[in-house]
Amino acid sequence: MAEMAHGYVDDKQTLLARLRRAEGQVRGIARMVDEDVYCIDILTQVSAATKALESVALTLLEDHLGHCVAQATAQGGPVAEEKLREANAAIARLVRS
Amino acid sequence: MAEMAHGYVDDKQTLLARLRRAEGQVRGIARMVDEDVYCIDILTQVSAATKALESVALTLLEDHLGHCVAQATAQGGPVAEEKLREANAAIARLVRS
Amino acid sequence: MAEMAHGYVDDKQTLLARLRRAEGQVRGIARMVDEDVYCIDILTQVSAATKALESVALTLLEDHLGHCVAQATAQGGPVAEEKLREANAAIARLVRS
Amino acid sequence: MAEMAHGYVDDKQTLLARLRRAEGQVRGIARMVDEDVYCIDILTQVSAATKALESVALTLLEDHLGHCVAQATAQGGPVAEEKLREANAAIARLVRS
Repeated sequence: MAEMAHGYVDDKQTLLARLRRAEGQVRGIARMVDEDVYCIDILTQVSAATKALESVALTLLEDHLGHCVAQATAQGGPVAEEKLREANAAIARLVRS
Repeated sequence: MAEMAHGYVDDKQTLLARLRRAEGQVRGIARMVDEDVYCIDILTQVSAATKALESVALTLLEDHLGHCVAQATAQGGPVAEEKLREANAAIARLVRS
Repeated sequence: MAEMAHGYVDDKQTLLARLRRAEGQVRGIARMVDEDVYCIDILTQVSAATKALESVALTLLEDHLGHCVAQATAQGGPVAEEKLREANAAIARLVRS
Repeated sequence: MAEMAHGYVDDKQTLLARLRRAEGQVRGIARMVDEDVYCIDILTQVSAATKALESVALTLLEDHLGHCVAQATAQGGPVAEEKLREANAAIARLVRS
């Protein structure tokens, strides 16, 4: 069953707490738009929510590299290659977004 | 009352719709983490939510430059300088986040 | 001739100095690759060169918004709209790169 | 001597070619600034050079994860942890720059 436990299992509560906060931030941004708050103040909140999502992504990736990818590369072969290809594509998406 | 109408007033419904969708995406990411979905699939959703927030930010900024900043620079003086300084700081935060 | 003096004219020497430094950094990265330096140390230099280019872009944009765009929006009309559209596209490219 | 061959050894010529092109782009940007070229056209070139450096970084990182990090995690222990920590820090710097 080792393959079923994803890398982020130890960070699950931290991730969920950060995501709840990010969800609240996004809802707060909608409220600001609805209440005609000054654009620059809304932009500050958008940057904060973006940074929160970014930190969720980096934690997920870190756990993924340290578990799924590390296990796959230790075994080698086509599965290892596929895991690496997949991780690299995810990193490229993050760097470019 | 011209100062009260923010630049994004015409895009308000579009912005609110996009923010509701982004909020749903963030909630979806939390559900994925909670249900132990595969890391890479979660990362794809995080990138989508980040891009959604980015497009909200770009619309807000666009409206801000075309209204508040344009009005201020047409009048010149310290208010114009302050609006430009503020807009530049917001752009820098976006570029760096 | 006012239209001929670009916004960045006052920052020209600063920009040229930063670009010469960035060029040296990129040449340094090539040398590191050529001499088989450790990947992580090269990546640190790539991040530094990217940040240097980013700061060049933010200065150019700042000067552009404070001069060309401000002059155009003060006059209004289709030229103003075109300048704003162009500036927004440049900002989006920077945010997404 | 396995530790001496860096992951990017197979991509060395590709990386060097891309870095020479990026160096030429940065020099071209300096020339544009010196010749008072229109800001927006310079910004387009800055985005191109930034993207070029980004692709160099992604290739280096890919090779690093597929070689150095994979070898270290296959052996486990503190070296593996250190390699992962280092790679994660490099990814975070890239995502945030």
